Amino acid sequence: MKLFDYYRSSAAYRLRIALALKGIPAEQVSCHLRHGEQHSPAYRRLNPQGLVPSLTVGETVLTQSLAILEYLDETHPEPPLLPGDALGRARVRSLAQLVACDIHPLNNLRVLKYLKDPLGQSQVTIDAWIGHWILEGFAALETRLARDSDTGSWCHGNTPGLADCVLIPQLYNARRFSVPLEAFPTLLRIDAQAAAHPAFHAAHPAQQPDAEPGA
Amino acid sequence: MKLFDYYRSSAAYRLRIALALKGIPAEQVSCHLRHGEQHSPAYRRLNPQGLVPSLTVGETVLTQSLAILEYLDETHPEPPLLPGDALGRARVRSLAQLVACDIHPLNNLRVLKYLKDPLGQSQVTIDAWIGHWILEGFAALETRLARDSDTGSWCHGNTPGLADCVLIPQLYNARRFSVPLEAFPTLLRIDAQAAAHPAFHAAHPAQQPDAEPGA
Repeated sequence: MKLFDYYRSSAAYRLRIALALKGIPAEQVSCHLRHGEQHSPAYRRLNPQGLVPSLTVGETVLTQSLAILEYLDETHPEPPLLPGDALGRARVRSLAQLVACDIHPLNNLRVLKYLKDPLGQSQVTIDAWIGHWILEGFAALETRLARDSDTGSWCHGNTPGLADCVLIPQLYNARRFSVPLEAFPTLLRIDAQAAAHPAFHAAHPAQQPDAEPGA
Repeated sequence: MKLFDYYRSSAAYRLRIALALKGIPAEQVSCHLRHGEQHSPAYRRLNPQGLVPSLTVGETVLTQSLAILEYLDETHPEPPLLPGDALGRARVRSLAQLVACDIHPLNNLRVLKYLKDPLGQSQVTIDAWIGHWILEGFAALETRLARDSDTGSWCHGNTPGLADCVLIPQLYNARRFSVPLEAFPTLLRIDAQAAAHPAFHAAHPAQQPDAEPGA
């Protein structure tokens, strides 16, 4: 397997966590987003969206991080990323999608670039945009996690799973943009636990071969 | 089951297609997005994000349309929305997520409202924004569908599935905003087929009890 990766991509970071949790070896190929390497014709042939991550499995190229997480869980079931019951799986997927559909895409690099040009927005306005969607999403997530009896020491029960693979990179991202997090004690509790977990540590942007100073 | 629905919500439309394909009865409860009913305290207790759809299953409230589609497929397996092999499932999920993560959230009502206020963008600029993300996503989707041998008369093979449940509402949405579609012959071919399919017809916004003129 080859993982087309970028140290600071939070969608790629999700996959690095899952690969580390399951002990699956994958060759990392860095695709430097700030240098536009995702737009090269060769990469676009692999991934017509020009986004990371992509994961090659033999001749097949997998795209979209949530689809890849499900694939990894189906083909390498231990330890599982999803619970054994359908309602539990629906809960975990919905927590992951709250972040992956309703926070992250709004703050992706291509969107921030569009806000700058052609929309002509200032960096202050763009930073407010980033914070707005993170805070709105995290408020709903905190409400759900704090009230649900299914929440354990992780998002669902007492082992890390799919929702944690998605939440932790979004928390990293929030800190990068100095978004205040004190209103989200349950998210911070899970984040502190992840910081002490070897798989989450190994997947952290600062630990990647293409990391730059400040990661 | 109760489906908290809005005729023009493309995320709710996905679920209506799946419910119709599988013949699952669900009571529709309209949540008028333009009137802000999704922000009522009662609805926020069900769905802290204040978004539709939500689906109640007994006392449990399910949120996030892709998670609910997977739940419906797991609990009502016939006809299946996902193929039988892991690589096929990864492909179908990635096609669905290309739309559900990288097109739809950027054009959701709450985002268009933010562009208007506080960002002060004109309707012309907002319409260009909508078109930009649809065209960018559809271009990648057309490339993938046109080149992949797994594409059949539907997105994957010759029966409608999860990716079609997500694609067809996005095409409806594109037409609402007068986005030109002639560059996407494969998408249009699948759309024409869906228009002639009873489940897709029943799920169409114009067929819903809360439809307004022009749907």
